[in-house]
Amino acid sequence: MTAEAERAAGRPTGPGRPPEPGHDEKIIQATLRLIDQDKPVTVNAVVAGSGVSRAALYRRWNSLTDLMADALNHGRATPEVDITDDLKRTLLEMLFERLDEARGMGYPQRRFRKRLELVMADRDLQWAYWNSHVTRRRHGMIEALRAGVDRGEFRADLDVESALDAMLGVIYYQLVVRGADLADPETEQRCRQAFDVIWRGMGV
Amino acid sequence: MTAEAERAAGRPTGPGRPPEPGHDEKIIQATLRLIDQDKPVTVNAVVAGSGVSRAALYRRWNSLTDLMADALNHGRATPEVDITDDLKRTLLEMLFERLDEARGMGYPQRRFRKRLELVMADRDLQWAYWNSHVTRRRHGMIEALRAGVDRGEFRADLDVESALDAMLGVIYYQLVVRGADLADPETEQRCRQAFDVIWRGMGV
Repeated sequence: MTAEAERAAGRPTGPGRPPEPGHDEKIIQATLRLIDQDKPVTVNAVVAGSGVSRAALYRRWNSLTDLMADALNHGRATPEVDITDDLKRTLLEMLFERLDEARGMGYPQRRFRKRLELVMADRDLQWAYWNSHVTRRRHGMIEALRAGVDRGEFRADLDVESALDAMLGVIYYQLVVRGADLADPETEQRCRQAFDVIWRGMGV
Repeated sequence: MTAEAERAAGRPTGPGRPPEPGHDEKIIQATLRLIDQDKPVTVNAVVAGSGVSRAALYRRWNSLTDLMADALNHGRATPEVDITDDLKRTLLEMLFERLDEARGMGYPQRRFRKRLELVMADRDLQWAYWNSHVTRRRHGMIEALRAGVDRGEFRADLDVESALDAMLGVIYYQLVVRGADLADPETEQRCRQAFDVIWRGMGV
């Protein structure tokens, strides 16, 4: 909870007092503890682990699925994309350099694997995560690709959604099928080579 | 077990008798039952479920991981690729038409999802599956792409491994991130559009 929210909630804030996490944050953290410990995420377990009431949980989230999607996204940001800059450099930065932001790799690799494990086991969770978080994170890159079409850098009939699926798909393939580590230079090189192929293919 | 193997094992064969699965097949089937029922796969459970001895299991597989990788590949074939034919048509067929062979989608979707769930939870299983099965299934497509480089249809410096990662990555992205169904025409269309982008990008 921010200091503003603390004040709004009528709680004392200031340098003498460590920030106290709000209810939502406690609920998210309790959910992540269960996930990280490979324990089933149930409303009872989240309530017990967070010390927050069931009512508070349902005030913020419609369902356990929505809560899990938000918990799995915790710590991942939605990067801003400058679509007026050189587009190739912008996208390369998004995919390969601004890792913490774009792919949330500050986000531990173990949790990334756990997230995929959970979404493959639960299609509702997969769709909740896609709708709440992935589409939002794709937005800037889609805008950048659209700007490229508008500027005549890419083919006028380019399907930007599928082009982005190809760029991101290569990266997922490393993690999901090859079981490779993105920090491995050989893996990154493979992704960059594929990016170049896709980039050429989008050109006029 | 084939009739030849049955005869080699000194068992009677013929129209009057239903084919009896061999030990290996019984072990695979017991493993798949555990997997399909979301039960933990342990040596004890496989032995109990198959009626085959622990010794027979270890004669055929070095580890439970290797057995699980083979079980998860059960029913998937390694398609032959004709690299003398039109390469674009050949690859499109591999990726979009010969589904049962190439992606093993005869292979139920539920098991596909379960396989990804299991490999994300167990990196050793992921590598075993990659080494034993995925690389073998990629082989024909890699040969086709190499033939395209040799014939001058693609850039001489094309990295065929990463180009194939891009083609397959788009498909995995649908299943793993979008939670889409490949039988959905919109999803297939997205994959085909991405394939076209990649294909152009490989050209000279």
